[in-house]
Amino acid sequence: MTDAPMTAPAATATAGEVLSRYLTEQAGRFLRALPQAVGEAGARPGTLPSVNSPGGTAGTGELLRSVRRLGGALHTFGALFEPEWAEESRTELRWLLGLLAQEPAYLRRSLRLLGALDTLSATGQGGEGLGPGMLAGHQGAPKARALLDRQLTLARTRAHSSVLQELRSSRLHALADRMTLLVGESPLVAMAAGRAGELLPARAAEAFEALGQAVRALPLHRAATAYQGDALHRLGSAGGTDAAVAVPPQGRPAAGDADGALAADDAPWQRTRILLKRARYASQVCGRPGLELDVLDQVLDRHQEAADAAVTVATAARTPRITPATAYVLGVVHADQRLEVEAARYAFGLQWPTLPHHGWHEWASA
Amino acid sequence: MTDAPMTAPAATATAGEVLSRYLTEQAGRFLRALPQAVGEAGARPGTLPSVNSPGGTAGTGELLRSVRRLGGALHTFGALFEPEWAEESRTELRWLLGLLAQEPAYLRRSLRLLGALDTLSATGQGGEGLGPGMLAGHQGAPKARALLDRQLTLARTRAHSSVLQELRSSRLHALADRMTLLVGESPLVAMAAGRAGELLPARAAEAFEALGQAVRALPLHRAATAYQGDALHRLGSAGGTDAAVAVPPQGRPAAGDADGALAADDAPWQRTRILLKRARYASQVCGRPGLELDVLDQVLDRHQEAADAAVTVATAARTPRITPATAYVLGVVHADQRLEVEAARYAFGLQWPTLPHHGWHEWASA
Repeated sequence: MTDAPMTAPAATATAGEVLSRYLTEQAGRFLRALPQAVGEAGARPGTLPSVNSPGGTAGTGELLRSVRRLGGALHTFGALFEPEWAEESRTELRWLLGLLAQEPAYLRRSLRLLGALDTLSATGQGGEGLGPGMLAGHQGAPKARALLDRQLTLARTRAHSSVLQELRSSRLHALADRMTLLVGESPLVAMAAGRAGELLPARAAEAFEALGQAVRALPLHRAATAYQGDALHRLGSAGGTDAAVAVPPQGRPAAGDADGALAADDAPWQRTRILLKRARYASQVCGRPGLELDVLDQVLDRHQEAADAAVTVATAARTPRITPATAYVLGVVHADQRLEVEAARYAFGLQWPTLPHHGWHEWASA
Repeated sequence: MTDAPMTAPAATATAGEVLSRYLTEQAGRFLRALPQAVGEAGARPGTLPSVNSPGGTAGTGELLRSVRRLGGALHTFGALFEPEWAEESRTELRWLLGLLAQEPAYLRRSLRLLGALDTLSATGQGGEGLGPGMLAGHQGAPKARALLDRQLTLARTRAHSSVLQELRSSRLHALADRMTLLVGESPLVAMAAGRAGELLPARAAEAFEALGQAVRALPLHRAATAYQGDALHRLGSAGGTDAAVAVPPQGRPAAGDADGALAADDAPWQRTRILLKRARYASQVCGRPGLELDVLDQVLDRHQEAADAAVTVATAARTPRITPATAYVLGVVHADQRLEVEAARYAFGLQWPTLPHHGWHEWASA
């Protein structure tokens, strides 16, 4: 998840030079990862990536990483690029992100949910003082596991088919051409000839300011206390609404790679996650490592994945003709995932104050 | 929950004098509360005590408090009493405790579980940033609520009938006579003529040592970290075993007022709760307030009540012919109660180190 930070821009470099260098590097990664990802997608979806690389196979993962960084840079430093080009590029990168992120997300969700179910059902025979899971020996556990496995495999297969369809499409070829042109030559505006050390931190500071604003709207005063006794009471999920869908409609304009309908309560956190990624990539462009941001990014990824997984479980519980025992187990697993959501919020509340709350500009340019 | 501590024993008092004074006071409370409790029990169980006094009505609550203190003192300072008398008295007090504690416990459990269900089902229209509960609008919530209400009302009615049967029994009359004799005159052994300031703290220190030993066996290293990501995974409950029963068999020898079968993982905490109460009462006998112990006692009461409530929910989920939606909601509520169990363990892990871990003897006699 960590990236080797770019070296800090030389004092004499222009903003355009630094941005071009960053985009060239990311476009190069994109172009190297693309054929590998295509090859991986050609493999049958039955041949799963191993548990050790739940983020998807190497090529797809690398492709996703460069797509996110390119999109983030084009957003944050948009004023320095030719507007129409930047807008089009961002649209196409978002499309690819939405397309590619689904399959690995379903895989991670399978690992998460089936893993949770397995430990919830464990009988605690192992050493190190492990007690039994609260579903130990419950007759509904195997059925609930099979149901979740079946539905997630179906969703993953559908996502895989979409990827297969699009990987040889003219749209993807056009995006690859766009990336090829980007290597070494970014369509910049005149302003980009200004000094990097002034222009870039100013834009990055805006990204941080947007992040700070989103975080100020979060109920961190609640999240900052562990176990308030209402962990599952106040944390809305889509469990009881009809908005929850296991397999989201294709091609909707995804702001990130979230692909499940989420409750209103989750939305500000989801938005914060996107803004945090942007701030993180912006600080990379400025040559500022930002280890604190990496940690927070992982925390919000976990938040997102647990929230999405909770939606999947709630949806599975509405499958017709399941047994009460199965439904009961799904209720426990749903609550377990919402607890993970709350745990992520708590972790965020602990970590966030370690960032500099004032002087983003100084921080980004330090 | 707090008691006015006895004044510290005068330097010249004998252990017997101090113990007699304590037992006289508690026996007096017992005798004053008994007719009131009998009157309350005569009222129909349909006329519930108000939500504001969930510990049972005033007379029953006061009776339970004196029974616990008398039993605790007879245990901890048992060596100073005539052995046969002390043993018989403890047996009879345990019997009354088991008999009286059930009905208020079921009432508290109703308030706890129905309250949890109601906030889980709340739509979050209220102010103060409350999100919707994770069961907001779920169709299974009203049915699950009705099921829990019905089963707990039945259990409470049965407990009430038992109380009614026994309140005029010769066994209770004999116990009341025993308490009357205890006022002013405790059956002590010769050793009790020793100095209170030496004998009593030594016994109290034993009670604290037993408590410390029980706590050392608890997995506090796990409980001390909030949200380990396996909150519900490692905390066993009786959810999947056949040992769980909503309505426990009558008259079993209860060590405290626990009245549900609990999982192996809960047992050491339940034992710690009893030892903590004993240590607390022992420190009262020694004229030592022990506010820290009051707090820990409340935490472990909460642990016990949440664990018992989880068992009730798991049992309700095995009711034949419930709908999957009902079962699903019960799964969520079960997990919610197990989360409360973990929250109590976490709170205990935070509070426990504030007690003096060494030198119980000095502490008890300070």
